[in-house]
Amino acid sequence: LLNILNGGYKGKVFPINKRETSILGIKCYPSLQDIDQDIDLVVIIVPAAAVKEIIIEAGQKNAKGAIIISGGFKEIGNQKLEDDLYDTAQKLGIRIIGPNCQGINYRANRLCATWPLIDCDGKIGIVSQSGTIGAAIAQQAKDENIGISCFASLGNKSDIDEIDFIDFFSLDISTKAISVNIEGVKDRKRFTRILSSTAKKKPIIILKPGRTDAGAKAVSSHTKSIAGNDMVFSVFCKKHGIIRSNDVTEFYDYSKISSLCNKPNGKDIAIITSSGGAGIIAVDTAVDCGLNVAPIEEELDKELHASLPNQCVISNPLDLTGDANIERYEVALEKVLHYSKADIILVIFGDPIKNAYELIKNNLNNSKKTIVACYIGGGDIEKQEVKKMNSNGIPVFPTPERAIKAIYSLFSLKIENVDERRHEQI
Amino acid sequence: LLNILNGGYKGKVFPINKRETSILGIKCYPSLQDIDQDIDLVVIIVPAAAVKEIIIEAGQKNAKGAIIISGGFKEIGNQKLEDDLYDTAQKLGIRIIGPNCQGINYRANRLCATWPLIDCDGKIGIVSQSGTIGAAIAQQAKDENIGISCFASLGNKSDIDEIDFIDFFSLDISTKAISVNIEGVKDRKRFTRILSSTAKKKPIIILKPGRTDAGAKAVSSHTKSIAGNDMVFSVFCKKHGIIRSNDVTEFYDYSKISSLCNKPNGKDIAIITSSGGAGIIAVDTAVDCGLNVAPIEEELDKELHASLPNQCVISNPLDLTGDANIERYEVALEKVLHYSKADIILVIFGDPIKNAYELIKNNLNNSKKTIVACYIGGGDIEKQEVKKMNSNGIPVFPTPERAIKAIYSLFSLKIENVDERRHEQI
Repeated sequence: LLNILNGGYKGKVFPINKRETSILGIKCYPSLQDIDQDIDLVVIIVPAAAVKEIIIEAGQKNAKGAIIISGGFKEIGNQKLEDDLYDTAQKLGIRIIGPNCQGINYRANRLCATWPLIDCDGKIGIVSQSGTIGAAIAQQAKDENIGISCFASLGNKSDIDEIDFIDFFSLDISTKAISVNIEGVKDRKRFTRILSSTAKKKPIIILKPGRTDAGAKAVSSHTKSIAGNDMVFSVFCKKHGIIRSNDVTEFYDYSKISSLCNKPNGKDIAIITSSGGAGIIAVDTAVDCGLNVAPIEEELDKELHASLPNQCVISNPLDLTGDANIERYEVALEKVLHYSKADIILVIFGDPIKNAYELIKNNLNNSKKTIVACYIGGGDIEKQEVKKMNSNGIPVFPTPERAIKAIYSLFSLKIENVDERRHEQI
Repeated sequence: LLNILNGGYKGKVFPINKRETSILGIKCYPSLQDIDQDIDLVVIIVPAAAVKEIIIEAGQKNAKGAIIISGGFKEIGNQKLEDDLYDTAQKLGIRIIGPNCQGINYRANRLCATWPLIDCDGKIGIVSQSGTIGAAIAQQAKDENIGISCFASLGNKSDIDEIDFIDFFSLDISTKAISVNIEGVKDRKRFTRILSSTAKKKPIIILKPGRTDAGAKAVSSHTKSIAGNDMVFSVFCKKHGIIRSNDVTEFYDYSKISSLCNKPNGKDIAIITSSGGAGIIAVDTAVDCGLNVAPIEEELDKELHASLPNQCVISNPLDLTGDANIERYEVALEKVLHYSKADIILVIFGDPIKNAYELIKNNLNNSKKTIVACYIGGGDIEKQEVKKMNSNGIPVFPTPERAIKAIYSLFSLKIENVDERRHEQI
């Protein structure tokens, strides 16, 4: 309730509890029947045995949806209780999220009926089997000022499942990237159909554990799902242009970059850095990924030699060295944008550079290149600049490897709608 | 100067500048000669051409060391200037760190003659070719309350090099884990000798970029070093029990765990979690690494069934489910410690659990098992608990994968000194 109120939900909220007359300063009702108007949605957190009765009451109030956070159903063997609940809701025309779930947060109407409170609006739509993993991604997106469009926890999926959410996200204008954490798929045909068509329109990033035999066994204990053959799933992702992430860090990084950048026009990358060491790491990782770290063009070489101080290393990576200031970055970025054929520019800030955000933003306009930043170090200036960039469409990563791997993940995409592939950064 | 003062250095500090009479409230001297006592160390940040003169003056004051932050030497082709500087210092008995370096921070005497200001004492000794990478690791160690014993930036290595630092760390009682970022090695014989003997006593964690051809070329531009054959270097690390990290994240994680934990007694791992999803990810990663996620023992199974609520999934991973409280964790950890044969216990907190630190600490005493935590989520309670654990010898990681990979890295170690291999956690 506190998160619903603090999250900025604009509709009416009615707390219901038999023992209280007021909760968090709001009038509390003993039951749904005591509310003298229809309601849209019920959020239910009561013992399992009492849920069905509330659904029936909600039906009388013409509710269309129920988020059932309560556990105690299929997951502990009470299949019948869950089936009964589902049948009841179906007859009343009420769609169910859950039971045994962590709720949902949909930023377009500012309804945070879940935890933690994420009130930073962005373009990542998260649907997660694991409430914890989904919430962790959402929390990171908030901490970094990336934000989310939605976080939905699946729970037992008695009614609405991951396919419904993906289908919804495919049409939801507030969602640009669709982040999916699943453990198994019930309806493979429908899954294939919806995912293959959605992947043509929006980036889908999947984290699907249960890759190993022991992991698959744990999946079956957790959600009674069948993890399926992992190789088959990988091939499926590859075929349809779905980004598969191998761990939680990748899941977040790939979701973040997909929500801000389109697939680059090609694999040529130029690296600008004030840290020679970080530049080398970026080169190693780029080569490992199959990106092309081409030598710099003759004309660019001439231009940079004419405009940068002696200690700079004019090559790719372009090393502005440790005493680089904002002006040196400005010259470098401008020349590289103008003279380099690179499709991607990675700008690494090895030291606290104030106004780094404005620098990139001013140069990004009208460019068809993909610009990504890496800001190493955790001081106050760094934190400020990172937040400014992230919230204005320039993805920033804390290490060169994570930046390069995130860029590379975009090449998995097979978005077909040319309109949507236009350069939309910022 | 500000970092030296704020870092808590207890010796006398003499600012020297020809134009000022006072800096940061301290009397400023026009030259070294104006100080009426001997000095131990000079930190030099003046134009390259003026450095030699200061070294000569420092010699007159019987200085034994010089940290030369100034650039403008070998790195821009001024080899002669650097050779001359080295010869002068050698004759005067002054050892040099740098030139063209980011200084050093040695916590045992609280001298932070570098940036950023890291004043959190820990057991990681960092020597880094890249000032940025070294500083980033040190900053993370501060942010997480892990701390460092030392951060040394190498610069041009005209005199003191990475081998000297590793040799020093091998005897330094404040350093437990030695973290080395290098791009190339000058004296291979000495490197092999010192590293192979040190690796028998203390964990060494190496990040050595320049793995790819393009990366090696960038190394040569950056520090005129020869990266060497990467496969040979990997074999060298493996042979001598040196932990090689593949990226900056691993470099930090492996340094952190090595500074707090010894090599586990065996590869059997038990996983306790409140997040089923995170538990599955941990299992997948453990299996990938070659750890053994054994089914739980019959007696443990009986004990857990008798003492945990119905919804818990009694298996390995042991899923305490989303409504787990501290008491449930307590029961689980106690039973697993008592009845499980596992050598390693990974405790995953998927939700904010207050006093999680005390829980683990109380159970850790006298245990021969390696206990590592994973605390997902970035709320206030989580941050507090993570800091308490990290600063009291229990390494905490933000994702299951990073926790498992860090644990696995410990198996590279070949520490021979049995005394030092005793269980030292906390």
